[in-house]
Amino acid sequence: MNTSTGEPEESTRDRILQAAVTIFAEQGYHGAGMSDIGKAANIQRGALYYHIGSKEELLYDLTRRHVEAALEAGRVAIRGVEDPVQQFRALARAHIRTLSERRADVTVAEREMHVLTGERAHALAKLRREYQDLFEEVLTRGVAQGAFARATRIDVMGVLGLLNYTYMWLDPQGSEPVDTVADRLSSLVLDGVRVREGE
Amino acid sequence: MNTSTGEPEESTRDRILQAAVTIFAEQGYHGAGMSDIGKAANIQRGALYYHIGSKEELLYDLTRRHVEAALEAGRVAIRGVEDPVQQFRALARAHIRTLSERRADVTVAEREMHVLTGERAHALAKLRREYQDLFEEVLTRGVAQGAFARATRIDVMGVLGLLNYTYMWLDPQGSEPVDTVADRLSSLVLDGVRVREGE
Repeated sequence: MNTSTGEPEESTRDRILQAAVTIFAEQGYHGAGMSDIGKAANIQRGALYYHIGSKEELLYDLTRRHVEAALEAGRVAIRGVEDPVQQFRALARAHIRTLSERRADVTVAEREMHVLTGERAHALAKLRREYQDLFEEVLTRGVAQGAFARATRIDVMGVLGLLNYTYMWLDPQGSEPVDTVADRLSSLVLDGVRVREGE
Repeated sequence: MNTSTGEPEESTRDRILQAAVTIFAEQGYHGAGMSDIGKAANIQRGALYYHIGSKEELLYDLTRRHVEAALEAGRVAIRGVEDPVQQFRALARAHIRTLSERRADVTVAEREMHVLTGERAHALAKLRREYQDLFEEVLTRGVAQGAFARATRIDVMGVLGLLNYTYMWLDPQGSEPVDTVADRLSSLVLDGVRVREGE
């Protein structure tokens, strides 16, 4: 419990993170003041530092939570699925859904994560690498089973780039359901744009 | 001529832009002070505002120049090329080369362009749309000629995302030449990962 407010500590932390995302999105990480974040979270300066420690810790916490959520969603999506093509489609859907649901966090993470240093940068890179491995494993398994022709590092990074960059253009409230967008992006990567011989 | 230094005006502006890219990359747009930019460019406050006008104008100028450079390189790359597959490959190479050569500008543009407002936001969106059209036209022409199977907006955005996101992971000094990376990304989009029937 947080003795100053009677709130459970986790929910105070959540409230601060939510305020931080908004302030980081509006003012950028470097432009954001801890006092603005405290004000937006309705928490006093001392209590803010007690819960968070530093602005960099705040940024780390929100990017870490985001990648962990994406990892968990990805793992759940392919659990029990055997076919690599279906696994790939499920991963793409999970990715686009996570991005849509966590739009503000993703935007701040994409723009600001380069700011992290030392142990935090290292830990985040490790988590992002685990997420990359999810895709690499599905592609590699597909190659082993004869379903996929390629699974190089450049292919994996290309696929992740294509999916990640949707945070710049995809409107989750747009006319096309996010699953439809994910399915079309999957088809683009699975089949390519070129007309196949004999078609 | 810039009467205070005897330099041609354009080169003073270039010098300021170069300083701004470095400061924006280190401190973020919101965290960057015009006085830091002035110091880095070795120019006095009054002269700085005379040449640039505002911090937002600086950001606009550097993002605009970058998109114009990409547009020009893309147009040159496909000039005289007839085959849509070769046009696509040429566009991808031009894109990755431009990103590699203008790495700092691209990084700042990707992270900070959302900050632009009003006329500047509008003008940049128009330029980015022209660049998107380059890819859309090549894909659409390919469909008309029977070479490509698809050219929806989602395909175009997917391709651009895949290419744009390379600024996050591609090391222009890495072991693989940037043209090789571009060619592999082209092949991924042209042919997809799935093994074709009968192969």
